[in-house]
Amino acid sequence: MSIQSFIPPHRILMGPGPSDISPQVLQALSRPTVGHLDPLFIKMMDELKQLLKYAFQTDNDFTIAVSAPGSAGMEACFVNLIEPGDKVIVCRNGVFGERMRENVVRAGGEAVMVDDEWGAPVSVDKVKQALNDNPDTKILAFVHAETSTGALSDAQALGALAKQHDVLTIVDAVTSLGGVPLKVDEWQLDAVYSGSQKCLSCVPGLSPVTFSAKAIEKIQSRTTPVQSWFLDQSLVLGYWSGEGKRSYHHTAPVNSLYALHESLVILHNEGLENAWARHQAMHDKLKAGIEKMGFKFVVQEGSRLPQLNAIYIPEGIDEAKVRADLLENYNLEIGAGLGALAGKAWRIGLMGYGARNENVSLCLRALEESLSEQ
Amino acid sequence: MSIQSFIPPHRILMGPGPSDISPQVLQALSRPTVGHLDPLFIKMMDELKQLLKYAFQTDNDFTIAVSAPGSAGMEACFVNLIEPGDKVIVCRNGVFGERMRENVVRAGGEAVMVDDEWGAPVSVDKVKQALNDNPDTKILAFVHAETSTGALSDAQALGALAKQHDVLTIVDAVTSLGGVPLKVDEWQLDAVYSGSQKCLSCVPGLSPVTFSAKAIEKIQSRTTPVQSWFLDQSLVLGYWSGEGKRSYHHTAPVNSLYALHESLVILHNEGLENAWARHQAMHDKLKAGIEKMGFKFVVQEGSRLPQLNAIYIPEGIDEAKVRADLLENYNLEIGAGLGALAGKAWRIGLMGYGARNENVSLCLRALEESLSEQ
Repeated sequence: MSIQSFIPPHRILMGPGPSDISPQVLQALSRPTVGHLDPLFIKMMDELKQLLKYAFQTDNDFTIAVSAPGSAGMEACFVNLIEPGDKVIVCRNGVFGERMRENVVRAGGEAVMVDDEWGAPVSVDKVKQALNDNPDTKILAFVHAETSTGALSDAQALGALAKQHDVLTIVDAVTSLGGVPLKVDEWQLDAVYSGSQKCLSCVPGLSPVTFSAKAIEKIQSRTTPVQSWFLDQSLVLGYWSGEGKRSYHHTAPVNSLYALHESLVILHNEGLENAWARHQAMHDKLKAGIEKMGFKFVVQEGSRLPQLNAIYIPEGIDEAKVRADLLENYNLEIGAGLGALAGKAWRIGLMGYGARNENVSLCLRALEESLSEQ
Repeated sequence: MSIQSFIPPHRILMGPGPSDISPQVLQALSRPTVGHLDPLFIKMMDELKQLLKYAFQTDNDFTIAVSAPGSAGMEACFVNLIEPGDKVIVCRNGVFGERMRENVVRAGGEAVMVDDEWGAPVSVDKVKQALNDNPDTKILAFVHAETSTGALSDAQALGALAKQHDVLTIVDAVTSLGGVPLKVDEWQLDAVYSGSQKCLSCVPGLSPVTFSAKAIEKIQSRTTPVQSWFLDQSLVLGYWSGEGKRSYHHTAPVNSLYALHESLVILHNEGLENAWARHQAMHDKLKAGIEKMGFKFVVQEGSRLPQLNAIYIPEGIDEAKVRADLLENYNLEIGAGLGALAGKAWRIGLMGYGARNENVSLCLRALEESLSEQ
């Protein structure tokens, strides 16, 4: 066996994530590892919590990063909030709504599905109906920004509806955090999870989460243990919180947390509103160029995510060949379609550090060149 | 809020992990991120599997890294192999045996405990008795190298016993992998998990695991779904294996996997036997020095791990003050006691890149200086 060091090329990441990463974040990532109970590291974790609260626009004390990718953050929300038999309304308008259903069932909950077309936002009216039809509902779960389609749902309206029915919300903000407005406190959302590798432009592997006081109340009043030891947030909290001693739960991914800290410092320095505006401006530029080329968006204007652009592939194009050409000859990654959109759409990500003028220009030009050669 | 970049000091990590990390691994960590479905990344994952097979000494096809710390690797083994009602014999001689019990219970299994003193290895005789007393046992779970005490158990004998009783084994090799002999195939072990941040000297956050054909068979013949979606290995396998297309499950922690690849290339270049011998030689040196200072080991000779040295703290010493002095004035981290040994013992780690002559010399001298000032 002869295996050498792996030296990756420098790709320009314009898929659905991981997104382009600033050299500043990669530099932070590679700083010397310290112990996970080192006082200086604990201090950094406290700063990280402050920065995450800013990103989520929340005062929730329980705002941390789960030591695993977004799917684990999702699972952390479901297994902590659901007790066996709990009824959960799950909105499904893409891949991640279906993954939510999987989580509900595996946690012993009862999933009531509210379906919308792929590419459409979650219908607030349908959810209202479902809440009326199911007065014993405990939780409403929906995806704020569907990474599989690029649809943005009205988290504010859905949050308000849930409050009217005294129902907790679980919200997938994997692709929305940092890219479009997300106001956890103002919108009264209860358990919100995200990913490090989308609009925060940090390395993949971490999942920021935040839990409201009401969510914590539900966790603390459980009569059954959380089925996952690793994701049991009442145990995790002993490591992330407490004025005095922090107790060991698991070994934190120290270096990845350095990187998340750095990416959030960058976001804070830019300012959330400016970051949202930048994503919108880059989307507008991409949209102008891409529509000129004749492409059509999967999502209607009005619920279109600026950071995730799903566009239908024209007839007669070998879509995999185009993506391979972009990757091999331009070091440019765009995303394939997922689930119902596999083979039918491309997904162009403009996320975080990836939402830059030069990236959009290159993407438009490279697509033009590649398509003209097909 | 004014938060700057976090610039950690350069600590010398001689606790129970994370261990010292080679600059070569940190450099690999910070290489440009590529997509988790990039053909070049898939190729690297294939190499990583080969390297992990070498480290585990196995031909198991299903040898991968779970995208989360060792505790999640532990949970992956338990939730995939246990079905509700399954009887599991759990050996408990430290913190991690107890964590195994937690996992069994939360997965709906029935835990039969075999207890040994903290610091003692798992008693093969007691396990034999437990297997005889419980002929309906499905799984035997034990910790090869107890990180909380430094005790090494006889995984070979326990593996053979399990086979005699047609029982699967789940083995915690978090601290043993790369530090002492571990021969998964020769010892007929079925599900073995480890951590990236111990003797492999990679950053924390990944958990190498390997499953035997018999373990896979058990997973494939389940009649109930695995309770965790994130850790469902039958889904994860679709991403890590397959000749043709890899299917998306979750976004892999790309950069951490670069680092693991690099740390395994280093291990492979050194050779497993040489790595084991180096850990032993560094332990011998530390032992000579530490015994000269009057310290006593928690674990009897013969079952003492070279890479994790738990030593009793002499009477009248403010143990936290000594550790703080070492950290603040020498940038040297040693570990506190955990669980039953909290406040009673220190844990000096000699793991992976940390098991170096200069580290041992510094540790001995710094301890001497610090103790003389108390």
